[in-house]
Amino acid sequence: MPRGRRTGPTRTREAIVDAAQTAFATSGYDAVSLRSIARAAGVDPALVHHFFESKSALFAAAMALPVDPETFVTALLAGDRDTLGERLVLALVELWDQPDGFRGFLGLIRGAMSHEGAARMLREFVTREILGRLAEAAAPDHPHTRAALAGTQIIGLAVGRKIVGIAPLAEADPAWLATTIGPTIQRYLTEPLPPAV
Amino acid sequence: MPRGRRTGPTRTREAIVDAAQTAFATSGYDAVSLRSIARAAGVDPALVHHFFESKSALFAAAMALPVDPETFVTALLAGDRDTLGERLVLALVELWDQPDGFRGFLGLIRGAMSHEGAARMLREFVTREILGRLAEAAAPDHPHTRAALAGTQIIGLAVGRKIVGIAPLAEADPAWLATTIGPTIQRYLTEPLPPAV
Repeated sequence: MPRGRRTGPTRTREAIVDAAQTAFATSGYDAVSLRSIARAAGVDPALVHHFFESKSALFAAAMALPVDPETFVTALLAGDRDTLGERLVLALVELWDQPDGFRGFLGLIRGAMSHEGAARMLREFVTREILGRLAEAAAPDHPHTRAALAGTQIIGLAVGRKIVGIAPLAEADPAWLATTIGPTIQRYLTEPLPPAV
Repeated sequence: MPRGRRTGPTRTREAIVDAAQTAFATSGYDAVSLRSIARAAGVDPALVHHFFESKSALFAAAMALPVDPETFVTALLAGDRDTLGERLVLALVELWDQPDGFRGFLGLIRGAMSHEGAARMLREFVTREILGRLAEAAAPDHPHTRAALAGTQIIGLAVGRKIVGIAPLAEADPAWLATTIGPTIQRYLTEPLPPAV
């Protein structure tokens, strides 16, 4: 019996995910299209759309993220804008704390520490697809600056809680983290920014 | 002519720094003493004190940090407590932006991403020796929690500006970063913390 033999659709999906991993790691998030991934995987673009409804869904699969970022952002935007910062922190921490829920983020962050392709992927993905969309919805001005500021606090929280394990953050209740760190995100996303000097 | 031959004092200093690098990376910051480093380097403890006036000074030398943390913290504490957050961000960013000024921090942060010894070193050093001392001076309660919260924002800022290069943070004026991110640090160091839930 052949080892590791897969049925057609599984093999096709895997080929697409493999091609996506390479494409995102090489070119970052923005420059990659579903069409270019289809070409690299040697499949019809319609097949990519059959398996993945959006670029962010394919990115999530390629990076082992536990949710489709599109779904994640849509759920956050459905709630009260005044509590966006707290709800983002709570949702992220609860996601990270799930079994295997941090693996994809860990890979993204570790990779970004030493490879420019991975760094580009992280900054484009986090500041556009997640925080950029929240910032655009939360305030009318400077969404990229707001997303970048919020990004520093989110990355620092991920490092402190999940990677470096700084006590008491590593063991803190997610709700406590939301109350403590949420206002920082809220301020970055919504309050007036000092003018550039 | 022997290659790489050094004079006695230089060789002794190098042996001490080498022993310190190994000791800190293996045991973290807190558990290491100048005496244990002297033993590992095979020198008299008085010689370690001759070259380095404190453990933090030796740590700075071993980690290629651009200043003695002791001096850095003392200067910050000499200023107005109400602007501690802003002054900390400004001082750190200006330090990081100096030629070679970020190399030691980069090594510490990168190491902490994948090695438990380095992670322990980073969290003990940052939250005790730098932020812990600032927090103790700034507010009467929960210095370790305050230092840990401030630590997440500082690490995230370092990653965003100096490692991952998130625009516009990577190019932002240090004074703008101090005005924008300083209040976050100030809040973590001085304002009432929500009770643990």
